[in-house]
Amino acid sequence: MNTFGNNWRFTSFGESHGRAIGGVLDGVPAGLKIDFALIRKELDRRSGKPDTQSCPKGAEGVSQRALREPDEVEWLSGVLDGVTLGTPIAFIIRNQDARPEDYDYLKHHYRPGHADKVYELKYGIRDWRGGGRASARETAGRVVAGCLAKQVLRSKGIIIKARLVQVGTENDPSKFDELIHAVRAEGDSIGGIIECRISGVPTGTGEPIFDKLQAHLAFAIMSINGCKGFDYGYGFAGVGLPGSQANKESGGISGGIADGSDIVFRCVFKPTPSTPKAGVKGRHDACIAVRAVPVVEAMTALCIQNIVNS
Amino acid sequence: MNTFGNNWRFTSFGESHGRAIGGVLDGVPAGLKIDFALIRKELDRRSGKPDTQSCPKGAEGVSQRALREPDEVEWLSGVLDGVTLGTPIAFIIRNQDARPEDYDYLKHHYRPGHADKVYELKYGIRDWRGGGRASARETAGRVVAGCLAKQVLRSKGIIIKARLVQVGTENDPSKFDELIHAVRAEGDSIGGIIECRISGVPTGTGEPIFDKLQAHLAFAIMSINGCKGFDYGYGFAGVGLPGSQANKESGGISGGIADGSDIVFRCVFKPTPSTPKAGVKGRHDACIAVRAVPVVEAMTALCIQNIVNS
Amino acid sequence: MNTFGNNWRFTSFGESHGRAIGGVLDGVPAGLKIDFALIRKELDRRSGKPDTQSCPKGAEGVSQRALREPDEVEWLSGVLDGVTLGTPIAFIIRNQDARPEDYDYLKHHYRPGHADKVYELKYGIRDWRGGGRASARETAGRVVAGCLAKQVLRSKGIIIKARLVQVGTENDPSKFDELIHAVRAEGDSIGGIIECRISGVPTGTGEPIFDKLQAHLAFAIMSINGCKGFDYGYGFAGVGLPGSQANKESGGISGGIADGSDIVFRCVFKPTPSTPKAGVKGRHDACIAVRAVPVVEAMTALCIQNIVNS
Amino acid sequence: MNTFGNNWRFTSFGESHGRAIGGVLDGVPAGLKIDFALIRKELDRRSGKPDTQSCPKGAEGVSQRALREPDEVEWLSGVLDGVTLGTPIAFIIRNQDARPEDYDYLKHHYRPGHADKVYELKYGIRDWRGGGRASARETAGRVVAGCLAKQVLRSKGIIIKARLVQVGTENDPSKFDELIHAVRAEGDSIGGIIECRISGVPTGTGEPIFDKLQAHLAFAIMSINGCKGFDYGYGFAGVGLPGSQANKESGGISGGIADGSDIVFRCVFKPTPSTPKAGVKGRHDACIAVRAVPVVEAMTALCIQNIVNS
Repeated sequence: MNTFGNNWRFTSFGESHGRAIGGVLDGVPAGLKIDFALIRKELDRRSGKPDTQSCPKGAEGVSQRALREPDEVEWLSGVLDGVTLGTPIAFIIRNQDARPEDYDYLKHHYRPGHADKVYELKYGIRDWRGGGRASARETAGRVVAGCLAKQVLRSKGIIIKARLVQVGTENDPSKFDELIHAVRAEGDSIGGIIECRISGVPTGTGEPIFDKLQAHLAFAIMSINGCKGFDYGYGFAGVGLPGSQANKESGGISGGIADGSDIVFRCVFKPTPSTPKAGVKGRHDACIAVRAVPVVEAMTALCIQNIVNS
Repeated sequence: MNTFGNNWRFTSFGESHGRAIGGVLDGVPAGLKIDFALIRKELDRRSGKPDTQSCPKGAEGVSQRALREPDEVEWLSGVLDGVTLGTPIAFIIRNQDARPEDYDYLKHHYRPGHADKVYELKYGIRDWRGGGRASARETAGRVVAGCLAKQVLRSKGIIIKARLVQVGTENDPSKFDELIHAVRAEGDSIGGIIECRISGVPTGTGEPIFDKLQAHLAFAIMSINGCKGFDYGYGFAGVGLPGSQANKESGGISGGIADGSDIVFRCVFKPTPSTPKAGVKGRHDACIAVRAVPVVEAMTALCIQNIVNS
Repeated sequence: MNTFGNNWRFTSFGESHGRAIGGVLDGVPAGLKIDFALIRKELDRRSGKPDTQSCPKGAEGVSQRALREPDEVEWLSGVLDGVTLGTPIAFIIRNQDARPEDYDYLKHHYRPGHADKVYELKYGIRDWRGGGRASARETAGRVVAGCLAKQVLRSKGIIIKARLVQVGTENDPSKFDELIHAVRAEGDSIGGIIECRISGVPTGTGEPIFDKLQAHLAFAIMSINGCKGFDYGYGFAGVGLPGSQANKESGGISGGIADGSDIVFRCVFKPTPSTPKAGVKGRHDACIAVRAVPVVEAMTALCIQNIVNS
Repeated sequence: MNTFGNNWRFTSFGESHGRAIGGVLDGVPAGLKIDFALIRKELDRRSGKPDTQSCPKGAEGVSQRALREPDEVEWLSGVLDGVTLGTPIAFIIRNQDARPEDYDYLKHHYRPGHADKVYELKYGIRDWRGGGRASARETAGRVVAGCLAKQVLRSKGIIIKARLVQVGTENDPSKFDELIHAVRAEGDSIGGIIECRISGVPTGTGEPIFDKLQAHLAFAIMSINGCKGFDYGYGFAGVGLPGSQANKESGGISGGIADGSDIVFRCVFKPTPSTPKAGVKGRHDACIAVRAVPVVEAMTALCIQNIVNS
């Protein structure tokens, strides 16, 4: 349904054209002083504010709405004077650019995406509905919840850091910004690969059979819109190595359990299909992988904190 | 812990050097006539019986023990006259090659694997223990449970079929057997990629936010020993395609929800590190991806049946 | 934690002295036209509005705050034009009588209850905190969520009806109002027994081993503040009957499974300990069982809908 | 389904007329030296061996089969040299008095109980099936798993002790044995009340909203066959007390959370309906509450250990 995790449990709600999106985070210990500056920074990275981006030119392409939404977080419960109470934390981010009471407005403003047809089949005739929920806007809630997880993890010495390592077939980061800029100028889009490094996970974290650490990470990351693959250690790229040479890099996990070295995984994001070249007007994300970086960090944090919190 | 799924719930138990391995499968409907021949065939594929393999020469390399174990399934509950009762199905596969009461025997026969160190750290000093549970032998239970899931899925028109599509950098299947044979002759090992196709999943299966169909598949597949990556649709290989060309192949899932076309995913298995070339004596699996094929099918079946059973 | 149910999942949040209390309800089907009048009526019953009570004089005693709070429900997501969207429904009820930003105010207004000491031990030094969450005010969210469950159940022919059947040792309902009135006049309080009848539950609902229908009902009802016991069928009162006479009344459940007859259970609520007679000034609930009736119905509805929704 | 608990997870399987009943217990720490004598004693109490009973004459009435079954526990996994390995513990108790392969035998030997009709409706035409699973024999597995929980709890200073406190309307224990003996002589049966005392539960155990300690205890106890009610503290009996006098006994739980004093609850068991007086031939349990005592202790132990293990 709409809940991630058991011990550090995040429930997400809200339609992108409704009154607000938000979430409830249960399992946060009492006494955590929330780092609001971190949340502000991560939300701005997610919405593509240029000065927060590693690819500022590439970010030119992001949708107008993402930039127009102030993404102010309103804390409804679980927090007092900026400190957590140990009770469930509910928060909302109001949608500025929405008139939820106006059904006609919604019908008018709903731009069918590629998940349109399946949502219509799953939920019925109101085609704008799934889009309202499936929108990338839903990831803002993940980022807020992930920031709290990051804070708790940081206090335990666990650091999560993701970065873009490939755009299209290019893997020299100094060339990413120009490349995305050029792709956007052509009205096209391009895929990308994000690498994420987790340091400080205690040796022994994870379970040996079904609940392997890599299985939980894959679940968390593959739940992000647009993500088409996950690997760790030598991964897909290492398939050609002979066993006699492939033995050195564990990716930080052995037999499903953290082995004390840094955990390193990668994930791939497809190019946006809705581009001017494909006949869809308006601004677009030339490379959604750019804005996915903070979301990958957030889901990694929620996943790891859910496991170490048990 | 040791349970996979909620609605079609498989609990695994047993040490490879203990009395038996086995499992309990809960949620199987009453009245299913168990296809014992299918289970026999899949267990033989898993243990590497040559006549069941697409790469019979490659299979020469499998461990003696896998071939020596008859893998006879004993049904303890939930089945009468070969028909399911609707109650939990418990089954065991006795370990022939084990003397569980003899602690010294175990200490002697436990060959440290690569997960050895982390298990020791996680569970304490008895280093043979984790190995007993983490052994590839544990996958026999998954195959039995997966066969029942396959049967139920088949009755709903859902077919799961996995096959080896790459060995090392070779992707011509007619060359796989010789390649693995050669690698084994050198005392080395090699990785491989398995592709799995699922046809007949009803449109609308899956959930749009966290419980995306691809996230659950990734979780199921990444829980298999030796699996280092999962992707679907264009996946990692498609990262270089421009969005204007990348729009045709969905991989069968759109926005987390089955779109009615075949679901196609891939997973990569690393080369076995314990090879003669690496100084580990004895026979070995030159390409574990060969024997992983029925396990990939089994976990796919458990995953899909768990979702459509809800 | 703060979630009830799996398939029809209610997550509760909010402190009674914070900005708002509320909840997220996941699993509600699309297309349900919400019966706002039912919600209004049930919230008023819960808060003790005299004209909604079976014991209007008894209700005189309820706390001023309960009556002063308008309990207006604000729907944040999952609803459009009064119709559910199939997505998670988040709602809040703002606390009028609260200044959440003012820590001193909170310290001042927190009247230590009997759970005070254990909360302090569990959560730390801020003694007002647990009270904020444990307050009876939290049950307003249960009532809202329960009303939606009732609506869905009603459409399936399942009707839930609770009523007060005993106050102290009195079991003639026509005498309850005067009795409670008299108890209140003495500055004392009194316990009560509520009986709940559920009709229309399909035969076969429930599971035979751990997840017996009566076990889930007991869990739901015993989670209400002040409830000290649950029984069904002949229950505690029938302990003296010989087996030869005790065979007729099943309470609607046999072997953990609904047998098609009405399910009838009882639950007992203790007298409020914080009374003028006990030295606690101010108005008080002379018989909390009166206002517990709609909460018992709500938890019953959440429980039954969670089971039949699976 | 057939699993109790999350962190200390017991999965039950087996039909009473099948090959074996048994269970899998997941979450047991490594290094526990199993107290086999305790398990032997508790299984004998459950099956009614006279020398283990507080009511030896009353026990005369128990069914022949319960006494004839040796209830030998066979440990399949998770245990070596009598010490737990930290892996899932699977065990079975073979049914001596069963010929599972013989369908006609089963049809012949299945004596329809009172849950017969609902099982037939739930599972289909094979009427003996539900009975096979629902039989009181299933509680043997609970007792084995409960003994391991008791051991772990004992090591933490948590002691669970249940006893019969009422038979029919009689609450003088010295009179129970004669009373049950007399009831049996008349071919009738009688109900009883068991009181259970849990000492040593750490203050703060339990959760304040839905997962209250009393709610989980009620769920565990109400899942026992024949149990018709649960209360704690003053419970149903205290409904007549004025609040000014009812304040002293918390039952060990305040606001859902253990307060450090002994937790005391009661549960009521109905009289067996299948008696000679009701026309059902053969020996019978004149008071099932007698043999329910170790099952109440077992479920209490599983419940508490599941909570403190989280």
